[in-house]
Amino acid sequence: MKTTHPNPSVSYSFVMRLTYPNRIAMFAKLTQTIGRLGGDLGAVDIVNPDAKRMTRDVTVRARDHEHMETIVQTLRKLKDVTVVNVSDQVFLLHLGGKISIQNKVPLTTRDTLSMAYTPGVARVCSAIAEQHAKAWQLTIKGNSVAVVSDGSAVLGLGNIGPEAAMPVMEGKAMLFKEFGGIDAYPICLRTQETEEIINTVANLSVGFGGINLEDISAPRCFEIERRLQERLDIPVFHDDQHGTAVVVLAGLLNTSRLSGRPLAGLRIVILGAGAAGTAIAVMLQNAGVRDIIVCDRQGIINGRTRTDLNEAKKQLAATTNPRGLSGKVEAALKKADVLIGVSGPGLIAAKSLRLMAAKPIVFALANPVPEIMPEEAASKAWIIATGRSDYPNQINNVLAFPGIFRGALNVRARRITEGMKLAAAKAIANCISRRELSPEYIVPSVFNRDVVRNVTAAVELAAIKTRVARKGLPRK
Amino acid sequence: MKTTHPNPSVSYSFVMRLTYPNRIAMFAKLTQTIGRLGGDLGAVDIVNPDAKRMTRDVTVRARDHEHMETIVQTLRKLKDVTVVNVSDQVFLLHLGGKISIQNKVPLTTRDTLSMAYTPGVARVCSAIAEQHAKAWQLTIKGNSVAVVSDGSAVLGLGNIGPEAAMPVMEGKAMLFKEFGGIDAYPICLRTQETEEIINTVANLSVGFGGINLEDISAPRCFEIERRLQERLDIPVFHDDQHGTAVVVLAGLLNTSRLSGRPLAGLRIVILGAGAAGTAIAVMLQNAGVRDIIVCDRQGIINGRTRTDLNEAKKQLAATTNPRGLSGKVEAALKKADVLIGVSGPGLIAAKSLRLMAAKPIVFALANPVPEIMPEEAASKAWIIATGRSDYPNQINNVLAFPGIFRGALNVRARRITEGMKLAAAKAIANCISRRELSPEYIVPSVFNRDVVRNVTAAVELAAIKTRVARKGLPRK
Repeated sequence: MKTTHPNPSVSYSFVMRLTYPNRIAMFAKLTQTIGRLGGDLGAVDIVNPDAKRMTRDVTVRARDHEHMETIVQTLRKLKDVTVVNVSDQVFLLHLGGKISIQNKVPLTTRDTLSMAYTPGVARVCSAIAEQHAKAWQLTIKGNSVAVVSDGSAVLGLGNIGPEAAMPVMEGKAMLFKEFGGIDAYPICLRTQETEEIINTVANLSVGFGGINLEDISAPRCFEIERRLQERLDIPVFHDDQHGTAVVVLAGLLNTSRLSGRPLAGLRIVILGAGAAGTAIAVMLQNAGVRDIIVCDRQGIINGRTRTDLNEAKKQLAATTNPRGLSGKVEAALKKADVLIGVSGPGLIAAKSLRLMAAKPIVFALANPVPEIMPEEAASKAWIIATGRSDYPNQINNVLAFPGIFRGALNVRARRITEGMKLAAAKAIANCISRRELSPEYIVPSVFNRDVVRNVTAAVELAAIKTRVARKGLPRK
Repeated sequence: MKTTHPNPSVSYSFVMRLTYPNRIAMFAKLTQTIGRLGGDLGAVDIVNPDAKRMTRDVTVRARDHEHMETIVQTLRKLKDVTVVNVSDQVFLLHLGGKISIQNKVPLTTRDTLSMAYTPGVARVCSAIAEQHAKAWQLTIKGNSVAVVSDGSAVLGLGNIGPEAAMPVMEGKAMLFKEFGGIDAYPICLRTQETEEIINTVANLSVGFGGINLEDISAPRCFEIERRLQERLDIPVFHDDQHGTAVVVLAGLLNTSRLSGRPLAGLRIVILGAGAAGTAIAVMLQNAGVRDIIVCDRQGIINGRTRTDLNEAKKQLAATTNPRGLSGKVEAALKKADVLIGVSGPGLIAAKSLRLMAAKPIVFALANPVPEIMPEEAASKAWIIATGRSDYPNQINNVLAFPGIFRGALNVRARRITEGMKLAAAKAIANCISRRELSPEYIVPSVFNRDVVRNVTAAVELAAIKTRVARKGLPRK
């Protein structure tokens, strides 16, 4: 899959160390060359201003890897210019990993050593041995989440394995910390067997207050999550399913506020029957939507006409598609109000949108390249959302999971209930006031700190209401 | 087991908030009462200096929990004095756990978000997918160690289970960070089955550069460590075995420097045939010691006379006890040069030491209460070492494991070889110069920062020599 970016991006940002004769106009020549090639010039630092030769570090943003190469190669060919080295900013940021462990007290004296470790620690151990619930107070458990993946469905990259999944899980841990104040630890598993994953996660869960499953492929993810949740008394939450579903619902709630048409009456088509598509279908049903049709690459999921359905898809077939349609996605799109794509790049043709009802709502969430680019959909759709940060209406899980887990940990929830997810979706939607709401602003920014605060409060209350909280609300 | 401390200790330190009439001599009366009861008065803070009643926070160290209670109850009975609340310093230090996750870069802008997470992170994932070894550079793996326990043999507390083991494992993670600069994460397992532990640890090992097994009871710990090490290409190190053995050997090397008698010729008795005792026996053999006798609570481990030996002890019997002794520990002690206790409190009578050869060396390492208290052994033994910080010669694993893992990670070692452990023991011993060496100073202080530096350097070199290093030495 080629992941082209229309504009130079920080994801393809690099620093070149260049030396060249210290002559008037030489630097202008360099920057003009970069500009002519479409590179975006950033910071320029002088490294060594020799009288004869100048050395500078030049930061450039490219569109993609090839573009980066082109710029470097072109500069190398310039007369008198030497490219001393090239450092890729994204790789530099990853050197040594992105998170570390911090001690809350320094162990620099005998006294702290005797309290944090032996012999003092023994009393704390004994207290927990007598009453296991004290682990929530006296260990990291109360603020810790394991981010667990088997590397089977990582981003748009697919089954790249657990080693290669680590940077994503570390990034996820960073998001937990930055947005939710939660200490999350990335654990990638050297197995993709359902039973092994369930046993391993159950075994390692003791010290955690929650389990965030991540990037585990469908249909295994459904069984893994369900059976782990049955076995453990802490939340087990596959974010690719529920995080996405919560933010999609938040977006749709706001399209309803805009249009005045209640969700329940909408015809919704979901393209993609994997982890996210399935969870979105279930969540929308729980929110009252009745007419949902799910399609995979073979077309409409219909229990009568399709003989190739696995268990998970058979279950989807049984609860969706009330009008019993069959055929390609286009058949489903006729008079549909909403199209939600959680599939792959470019899978929706612009002309298909013409089949939809008036004021079509299109969530094209494949990442980084959506089912249809917003530019193409613009003339046909009323509201367009994507998974990308460079277009309006970014459906980003980071709006949901930090607050959901923050709220769950605050009340020591045993699980994440439907009520908690629904509350989270409403809280996200309501971060945008009626006055602010517009077709280009249906979900709040990920940097809006109200989001995590409001989601947390809503989830805490819903946990108490749905009777999964083991603790009252923290005193304000 | 009662863990009495002879002196007031920070491990039993507490803060009382007291209010009393603001009159001359009232405070003196309070402090005298605390002093009379044997409490050690620490910091005193004024909370609220009312004209009529004074409120102060008073820090006191007690000997043990009962002593703490006695002091509080006595003060409660004093006329006009109110004990508003009592806070236990050790428990306060544990509130919320002792470690946290830190992001190396803040995710406060779109740009860092795009580089640390999607879409930028995808390029890093792809690079690792192509070449797994890159995970050492581009993820936390290169500096990460899992501290894994099943809670079956925690400190002197025994099988208190995984929840109650967490504070120790968190403390261990703190030691890794403070002394080795290593990011260690505590993982307590909800299983004590050998096969389950092996599978779980193997499955979760992907993101780690080493596994530190901790407080797993013998004999399971032997098989678990051996089989995990066979399966994984990163060090698997049960610290209760090898950490202890390395520091014991370091101490003995220095007794040899003092006495001028080489280790190889010494008669050594080990009391305790668990994880530590077994590992010490093996390590001393590898260091050249020929006459080792191991005893458990039933007496000398002898393959001919004992019918109650498990597999691990049978193996010990086959390689130790060259003179074929049998009977109680006293039979072994006759003319022995060294006694190493890794068993339980008070298991050695002072008179037994009279059986030993001239200049007896006694390592009484049961913790917190040794096999024989140094006061009792003083008149009979030449050199005494314990596991405690309040006597000279503390045999503390923290002298070994931070440098051993630091060195192993620096060269990406596949395992910890005997050569690396031996090098570590010598490096620890040599932190004390010939001139400094004395019967009361055979092991360096845990706060001596030379130790980790020297152990690291020695372990790196030994890893390269024993061909388990995947990387040369880092440039200085």
